Amino acid sequence: MSDRIPVAVLGATGAVGQRFVSLLENHTWFEVASVTGSDRTQGSRYVEAVRWVVPGDIPAKVAGMTVRSSDDPGDVALVFSALPSSVAKEIEPILAGRGYVVCSNASALRMQPDVPLLIPEINPDHLAVIEAQRRRAGYEGLIVTSPNCAVSAIIFPLAALHAAFGLSRVHAVTMQAISGAGYPGVPASDIQDNVIPFIDGEEDKIENEPRKLLGAVGDGEIVPASFVVSAQAHRVPVSDGHLAALSVELRRKATIDEVREALESFSPPPEVRDLPSAPARPLVFHDEVDRPQPRRDRDDQDGMAVSVGRLNPCPVLDYKMVALVHNMLRGAASGAILNAELLVSRGYLVGAGQPAAVEAGVGD
Amino acid sequence: MSDRIPVAVLGATGAVGQRFVSLLENHTWFEVASVTGSDRTQGSRYVEAVRWVVPGDIPAKVAGMTVRSSDDPGDVALVFSALPSSVAKEIEPILAGRGYVVCSNASALRMQPDVPLLIPEINPDHLAVIEAQRRRAGYEGLIVTSPNCAVSAIIFPLAALHAAFGLSRVHAVTMQAISGAGYPGVPASDIQDNVIPFIDGEEDKIENEPRKLLGAVGDGEIVPASFVVSAQAHRVPVSDGHLAALSVELRRKATIDEVREALESFSPPPEVRDLPSAPARPLVFHDEVDRPQPRRDRDDQDGMAVSVGRLNPCPVLDYKMVALVHNMLRGAASGAILNAELLVSRGYLVGAGQPAAVEAGVGD
Amino acid sequence: MSDRIPVAVLGATGAVGQRFVSLLENHTWFEVASVTGSDRTQGSRYVEAVRWVVPGDIPAKVAGMTVRSSDDPGDVALVFSALPSSVAKEIEPILAGRGYVVCSNASALRMQPDVPLLIPEINPDHLAVIEAQRRRAGYEGLIVTSPNCAVSAIIFPLAALHAAFGLSRVHAVTMQAISGAGYPGVPASDIQDNVIPFIDGEEDKIENEPRKLLGAVGDGEIVPASFVVSAQAHRVPVSDGHLAALSVELRRKATIDEVREALESFSPPPEVRDLPSAPARPLVFHDEVDRPQPRRDRDDQDGMAVSVGRLNPCPVLDYKMVALVHNMLRGAASGAILNAELLVSRGYLVGAGQPAAVEAGVGD
Amino acid sequence: MSDRIPVAVLGATGAVGQRFVSLLENHTWFEVASVTGSDRTQGSRYVEAVRWVVPGDIPAKVAGMTVRSSDDPGDVALVFSALPSSVAKEIEPILAGRGYVVCSNASALRMQPDVPLLIPEINPDHLAVIEAQRRRAGYEGLIVTSPNCAVSAIIFPLAALHAAFGLSRVHAVTMQAISGAGYPGVPASDIQDNVIPFIDGEEDKIENEPRKLLGAVGDGEIVPASFVVSAQAHRVPVSDGHLAALSVELRRKATIDEVREALESFSPPPEVRDLPSAPARPLVFHDEVDRPQPRRDRDDQDGMAVSVGRLNPCPVLDYKMVALVHNMLRGAASGAILNAELLVSRGYLVGAGQPAAVEAGVGD
Repeated sequence: MSDRIPVAVLGATGAVGQRFVSLLENHTWFEVASVTGSDRTQGSRYVEAVRWVVPGDIPAKVAGMTVRSSDDPGDVALVFSALPSSVAKEIEPILAGRGYVVCSNASALRMQPDVPLLIPEINPDHLAVIEAQRRRAGYEGLIVTSPNCAVSAIIFPLAALHAAFGLSRVHAVTMQAISGAGYPGVPASDIQDNVIPFIDGEEDKIENEPRKLLGAVGDGEIVPASFVVSAQAHRVPVSDGHLAALSVELRRKATIDEVREALESFSPPPEVRDLPSAPARPLVFHDEVDRPQPRRDRDDQDGMAVSVGRLNPCPVLDYKMVALVHNMLRGAASGAILNAELLVSRGYLVGAGQPAAVEAGVGD
Repeated sequence: MSDRIPVAVLGATGAVGQRFVSLLENHTWFEVASVTGSDRTQGSRYVEAVRWVVPGDIPAKVAGMTVRSSDDPGDVALVFSALPSSVAKEIEPILAGRGYVVCSNASALRMQPDVPLLIPEINPDHLAVIEAQRRRAGYEGLIVTSPNCAVSAIIFPLAALHAAFGLSRVHAVTMQAISGAGYPGVPASDIQDNVIPFIDGEEDKIENEPRKLLGAVGDGEIVPASFVVSAQAHRVPVSDGHLAALSVELRRKATIDEVREALESFSPPPEVRDLPSAPARPLVFHDEVDRPQPRRDRDDQDGMAVSVGRLNPCPVLDYKMVALVHNMLRGAASGAILNAELLVSRGYLVGAGQPAAVEAGVGD
Repeated sequence: MSDRIPVAVLGATGAVGQRFVSLLENHTWFEVASVTGSDRTQGSRYVEAVRWVVPGDIPAKVAGMTVRSSDDPGDVALVFSALPSSVAKEIEPILAGRGYVVCSNASALRMQPDVPLLIPEINPDHLAVIEAQRRRAGYEGLIVTSPNCAVSAIIFPLAALHAAFGLSRVHAVTMQAISGAGYPGVPASDIQDNVIPFIDGEEDKIENEPRKLLGAVGDGEIVPASFVVSAQAHRVPVSDGHLAALSVELRRKATIDEVREALESFSPPPEVRDLPSAPARPLVFHDEVDRPQPRRDRDDQDGMAVSVGRLNPCPVLDYKMVALVHNMLRGAASGAILNAELLVSRGYLVGAGQPAAVEAGVGD
Repeated sequence: MSDRIPVAVLGATGAVGQRFVSLLENHTWFEVASVTGSDRTQGSRYVEAVRWVVPGDIPAKVAGMTVRSSDDPGDVALVFSALPSSVAKEIEPILAGRGYVVCSNASALRMQPDVPLLIPEINPDHLAVIEAQRRRAGYEGLIVTSPNCAVSAIIFPLAALHAAFGLSRVHAVTMQAISGAGYPGVPASDIQDNVIPFIDGEEDKIENEPRKLLGAVGDGEIVPASFVVSAQAHRVPVSDGHLAALSVELRRKATIDEVREALESFSPPPEVRDLPSAPARPLVFHDEVDRPQPRRDRDDQDGMAVSVGRLNPCPVLDYKMVALVHNMLRGAASGAILNAELLVSRGYLVGAGQPAAVEAGVGD
């Protein structure tokens, strides 16, 4: 019998939900114990409900599970949410109220001031608002969210530079992969031999989430950082990997060598380094003149690295550079799993009624 | 017998050279009378020297021509240059010295202060420096150049906004098509399912050419406009069509309606409107939320339109937008042909010894 | 006032329906007078009902039309059907019963023995069964159909070879473009950097339609030709243009020069040559070692040419070759329009109550 | 100190050569001890001589090696050849003469009757001709070759069917990935949004190599099997993975269940199963209606699986199906490494003067 922590995947038939199912197959701490889906798929076996689009086969154990309703994920303490935003908005608070620890990839609650928008290497201190979140909403469980996939690309260099010099203005132009739109997502007729300069709602997320991610813990809520971001989002004919052309203005002027040093020396806090999904080097700096590139760099460190390169002075702001993330891994499912690992490591699952499993899990 | 003006295409076996040959097949004023190529191809028949990559077949009349040396284009008054920059730098001045009118798509001499970097709809007044050019260099002919293909995308909205409000800062991130690299150009292994955030020399051109294009005629030379441009250039897996995400800061503050009005009302000077290759609307403004797109908009008005859309306020500068050009047509061969048409219309070919042909041509 | 023949486009909001609307904008004989759509779009203006995916803009006149129900296309004599097959099966007979001349691109009735599966250059004699069709079904109008888009690629070389030598066995492997799946059609996530060796129902059509197309007129019905076809259909990441690798076994043995001569000398019957949409050379034979190719050859003769090349001996059957068609033009909307032109030219619209318009049209 | 067998990679700067270098980095038996290249690169450090196009970084140990001449690979017993065919033809016999064991991916000597064209799971008995090879050519070493990359896709199902029923005729239409052309290989301008129905020399290889691969050991040479193959090769815009649509005629008629059983039960001889690079299931049979697909199946079992699916009756021959291989792994470098492993396991390196290393290696 497994001593892994049983978890549920909400919205498990979608593209991100499938990634959760796939990534958790051999996870050392977590084990998928239930999957949920829409009204259409509830009650059917997962293998029949899903149009599997993720590399490899459906994990055999999950294939035979009966798809449950998302408001009833069963006897687990931790749920990963890949729900559509409109559904997440209703369901996630209900589940947190019932005691579930919710690690959500949905956008619905990301900007709520007492819900951490969490990246363990960047703002683990934001977990401090969970107490206020529970008080405010009467949750026995809790909700943490992970950021938008394109934000996951730019936030690592921004975090490094904000810590070192302070940011005042950021300009970001993204070139985003097809998989970021979910499944079926973008019709091939639209994107074949083409670029689409529009992704619904994306620019707003890119302009706002970084400020919360690099914000400060105030009185029971996150106070956004004060820089401004301008975003222009594009869909490009690439399977996986979001690329962003960044230009930044720093509060404290810095030489290009100082900027480069700040990027190269980025390292996560000690408590994060040994989490199962934490990459050795979350920010990889490239000197090659033509990197990072989606196809060549997206899989670095199991898709958990953010690759940064083409650092150059910017005639308009201060410095420009290019950043890349695997949008389905660091930018979605793997990122949320790392969040859950931090929560377990911090002991948040104990109150949720799974102490034995947690201890077993953490001891691995 | 044709009364079209005989012209030569220099570097006629390359991708842009082929476009010249193709576009001139049915041109009402010009007719290809000679083609030139590298040492390797000289003396062979064009049909055997060329790896034809342009739509349609090789024009029959040109197919049988013997490829000449680029420093000896024969008995024509006008030459279109698609030479590599390093070759153009040597050959074009020699030809101008011998009396040829050189319309060049090469980058070699674009930034020379007394060589017009010409777009007829934008800066026909720059032809005023030709007199100084001839004096300085002792040319009997002359040289005019057409801008970099990515610059051709952004210069139309920049021109409209600079005229209306003055520009102070411009940020441009380009997503450029494969054909822009010439032939063989980018290996498919590099760009398949990928984006390459580097095009050699391109960012420098995008940062400098717009300032000359929108500069003023000074004492025998063009004085660049004083705004600054920051550029980040990317290659994307698209066959034709360069897209640019632009953000601009204006000297005189303007409402979004004023900006939009400035873009929509852009119109060329009267002398340009009736040139054979001039599009009815050189700048097409799009209200649709997801336009312009390379595949859908690149062929607008025979590839001579620049399409602009996604006008929005920019939190960092003032306004952002997206611009698109067909890099091989407006951005290369067709643009240079339009330049030649303006030169003919202004009478520059007369002194070059082809008055009869010119008059016949212009009368069409 | 226009003296063009008013026509309706059924299923006008789909990808093929849009092509009809676009192609008919400047047609010399026909003019779109009404458009129909599904329950969801009926009653709304076309411009609001359609997600326009065809090059160029929506024709202004059609943009403002109110979408009608497909069983009530209004006061026209001729309808082009781009209906889904299941709908076509119900609606097309009803309309033919009411006196409409139906030119259908749907697959529903293609294999019905007394419904011509028509390509004017190949089997105009099949119109002879219309009389039987009308008798059997009591139609005042009539139905003709056009073949599957992939069949349109292979049928031209097959027709040439069947006429010259007789076919006994045909092997066809297709590589089909994205647009052939309609809109939204294939998710980009499925086809990006990929080939899908399956298109639902396609192999069956490719194995059966050619036999009817090259069949003989029997007693009021088409008797299929007796060769057999084996098909394997693939979707490839190409926007437009279906390519087919063909291998054929001939009844009468022939040299490669004879085969080549049969392909090169293919020419349509005189009555077809002057129809407005008829290409000068419906079958274009290529000697180049690497042609035809979708991107380079699909637009030949306004997309009405079928390009054939790579003729070689086949060690298994007799000869192999490659054929290409623009699946949305010759292989769909343009093909059906050519069918309608033949019907008009033959006088089939007269009985349908539009004699004046027809005469005017044909006289153009 | 490593006790791995030192090997050389000939033509190490090319795309396949890079794959060898990458795959051997962590190989349990072999270790790259020298790399060779063309005149242009000899004498420079590998990291400077190579344009690295393979996933991941250049192995640190190899990066600093000085590129040697291919006719002087240094103090190793085993060489992997990724030489261009014209060079391989000269160099490989010289090296075999000097005592090197040559595992070649080049096509030069594949069809020589006493040179094994080897796939360990299929024809390990062909090693019997090595003795004759050595006798004939006076080699102290030996040469074995691995097949063309597209042949690697089709040969597994062909081997299974030939063993069970005998093959008489085979029709193969391939859709081959970009990486198969090496680097720089296919210009993106040629293949973007396109299919090219021509790969120089490929059809000839596909028509001939399978017959040798499934041939019998005769008197010191391989006697080709007597079936015939017809091939049509296409390049498609896919990064990796060659797909082939196959149709086969069997000598002994079989039901579809028997054919399926023959494919599913394919298994390698015992001596091959435990070689380090041998996949658990070299032929994977798919029941899904739309598999195999390049992007989804090429990486199965580290790219050493051949995936087969879409088994259906063929109206022209007997059965049709689709097969897929990762052209750079099983179809090139990994396949050649597996060959070398079989040679080591059979003791062929002992006589080549590296007995200690071999014994250490095999003992792993």
